[in-house]
Amino acid sequence: MTDSAHREMWEKLNLDLEAHDGLLAVLGQFYGDIYLSQDNRLKGAEYLDFVLSEVHGLRIKEIQDARDAGRKVIGSFCVFVPEEITLAADAVHVGLCAGAEAGTDLAEQMVPRNTCALIKSFIGFKLARLCPFIESSDMIVGETTCDGKKKAYEAFNEIAPTYVMEVPQTKTQAARELWKSEVLRYLAEVEKLTGKTITAEKLKEGIRIANGKRRALQRLTALRAADPAPISGRDALLINQISFYDDPVRFTAKINELCDELESRIADGKGVAPAGTPRLMLSGCPMAVPNWKLPYVVEGAGAVIVGEESCIGTRNSRDLVDESGETLEEMIDAITDRYMKIDCACFTPNDERLDNVTALAKDVKADGVIHYSLLFCQPYSHEALKVDKALQAEGVPMLSIETDYSMEDVEQLKTRVEAFVETLA
Amino acid sequence: MTDSAHREMWEKLNLDLEAHDGLLAVLGQFYGDIYLSQDNRLKGAEYLDFVLSEVHGLRIKEIQDARDAGRKVIGSFCVFVPEEITLAADAVHVGLCAGAEAGTDLAEQMVPRNTCALIKSFIGFKLARLCPFIESSDMIVGETTCDGKKKAYEAFNEIAPTYVMEVPQTKTQAARELWKSEVLRYLAEVEKLTGKTITAEKLKEGIRIANGKRRALQRLTALRAADPAPISGRDALLINQISFYDDPVRFTAKINELCDELESRIADGKGVAPAGTPRLMLSGCPMAVPNWKLPYVVEGAGAVIVGEESCIGTRNSRDLVDESGETLEEMIDAITDRYMKIDCACFTPNDERLDNVTALAKDVKADGVIHYSLLFCQPYSHEALKVDKALQAEGVPMLSIETDYSMEDVEQLKTRVEAFVETLA
Repeated sequence: MTDSAHREMWEKLNLDLEAHDGLLAVLGQFYGDIYLSQDNRLKGAEYLDFVLSEVHGLRIKEIQDARDAGRKVIGSFCVFVPEEITLAADAVHVGLCAGAEAGTDLAEQMVPRNTCALIKSFIGFKLARLCPFIESSDMIVGETTCDGKKKAYEAFNEIAPTYVMEVPQTKTQAARELWKSEVLRYLAEVEKLTGKTITAEKLKEGIRIANGKRRALQRLTALRAADPAPISGRDALLINQISFYDDPVRFTAKINELCDELESRIADGKGVAPAGTPRLMLSGCPMAVPNWKLPYVVEGAGAVIVGEESCIGTRNSRDLVDESGETLEEMIDAITDRYMKIDCACFTPNDERLDNVTALAKDVKADGVIHYSLLFCQPYSHEALKVDKALQAEGVPMLSIETDYSMEDVEQLKTRVEAFVETLA
Repeated sequence: MTDSAHREMWEKLNLDLEAHDGLLAVLGQFYGDIYLSQDNRLKGAEYLDFVLSEVHGLRIKEIQDARDAGRKVIGSFCVFVPEEITLAADAVHVGLCAGAEAGTDLAEQMVPRNTCALIKSFIGFKLARLCPFIESSDMIVGETTCDGKKKAYEAFNEIAPTYVMEVPQTKTQAARELWKSEVLRYLAEVEKLTGKTITAEKLKEGIRIANGKRRALQRLTALRAADPAPISGRDALLINQISFYDDPVRFTAKINELCDELESRIADGKGVAPAGTPRLMLSGCPMAVPNWKLPYVVEGAGAVIVGEESCIGTRNSRDLVDESGETLEEMIDAITDRYMKIDCACFTPNDERLDNVTALAKDVKADGVIHYSLLFCQPYSHEALKVDKALQAEGVPMLSIETDYSMEDVEQLKTRVEAFVETLA
């Protein structure tokens, strides 16, 4: 695909071409510094590099081709939106969370200043006309996970019509019923959008594809228990990020190939850093593309990241949908149950997250955990205190970081992370 | 009741006597400056002065007497907790929200710094052992209205066991079902706590008492449409604050008496400020005792406050429970429906609040509105932007204020409020 074909496509999507060029230039520079500079990288990382380099190019072209062929595109901001149902209607499911400062000034006219960077970013990307995924979406799905997003969607809805799913706040039977009714409402909405009927057969296939992606990511998580660590945290995060954008079947095949390579590496005792390098796990808020700030700081501080407990990490891959259902009703129940297991900080209480964090830290043999909260993210900031206590009880040290997308605090973060890593050595 | 009897009672409640003395001294000073200094005050204000002066004294004594007589005390932080049910079990229902900086340093060890002052305050009051209402509560009820409170109750639960009600986030039929199940769960919990069965007759009586209180407050709201304003905003706020603490039957009688006095005043063309004084309405977050900062600033700036659109204001009195139900089931449905009408910023969308704000501004003949958000209160900070637009469309100017409980910004607030009032003259 030629550069001019790209530009023509972006123009058709009404992107601000000049600003978008600037974004891609920064993104390329960032990617070079943070990714291409790594030693001992996997051969399978070629897939990551290619996907990322074409994230606004070939992938958008594929999506436009799908639309031309009559398929619909559904964009979402949260792991609660059931991809199985989207896939069952032969629609494309993409993540719309954004990880860069763009259009912040514009966004702050629509939402309060004391709003987390992730929210300001997706609003800013829309207002500044920088995101081809938003512009390609036939339906945008929000959800009521946190106050910040819940209320931001009301403003966002004025510039990009947004369908909102109600996620309950507890895990009682009544809350499950509410969520099941929301799953059914989503299914009806997707059928309406696509003009397709979601049959049991189609939904079974959707479940199979989504579970396949999760199994590949679970396999990756398990392989990272090896010492020396066979893959960098940066690359693992990128894999999780790409899981929200790329075609799920291709993604699953590529990540399984990459896991094959990891297995040989492990068998050969090879890794991205020497055995004995301090092993850290990240826990907390999601890091959307291109928010690689903290992983870059951590792995630049002489540690290696061996796990990501976040929505762009194990929170999205840990639980499978039960595949034994044959009727639509059984499968809807299985989907409802699977999503009700998500240990999002929006739930109260959310003690299973504490169990999951401590278990994962043990599974990936983490020497310490860095809890990452976006500034003004109340749910995860609260839980940082609880996660710290739970890890302390297991003898795992934790460093709590609160930050945003700006680069202003990088030096300060480096100092704190280096000091933390030193205590682990 | 002697001073030493008070002290003995507070000691029994395990208050920190020294710190509590300090609190009462500051409160007395504040009350003198802000309340007793007012001109043209109502005779009925004697009731307010007495209740406030004995808020930690005689009222607590009454509550202890009630407990000694076998009644239970239920404390809550939110207008969503159905008082009708509490009253039907012959229990005492009190508000626990706090409006002063106390124990903030302690509170910030349990909740993030970026938490609103109201939440830090109730946690601080508990940790610093300053609140006899919390210490007298046999059951403390939280709710999932905002992220800040929802997650803070998890921490608070460790120092004061807290029963949490799930408030839904939309007003769909499924959300109403969830809320109804929560109302029923609360009823069962109250029955368990009190050992009493809530009969239809008892619930009817509870509804009658709660509605009576709301009707008295509605009457007050309606009388404030008069020009000159017959009562200060400070006194009206205090009435709303006291509605959460005092015995509801006594309160209703006293406020109706006070409204009789207002009616004569209005007939005589008398008021607390000359006719033509700029009339302002407050809208937004609740102001708990003794958070009189903004009303003091506003009425010190030459304006008079004629309405409070907040939980400690019309949000809690606007809607009655339908009284036509005869069976428990009918009354539970009526209670469910009444509470689902609350236009809390926790709902999405919450457009009825925009209608209610503009209607109230018109009803009380407000020349302008001051929107008040507690710093870090995401739901109301978001809605400030929408309320502004809605009022602008009606030609009503609005000033948006974000503040906390500290006195540091009083001079700055004065400047902003005075400038706003000048534009209205």
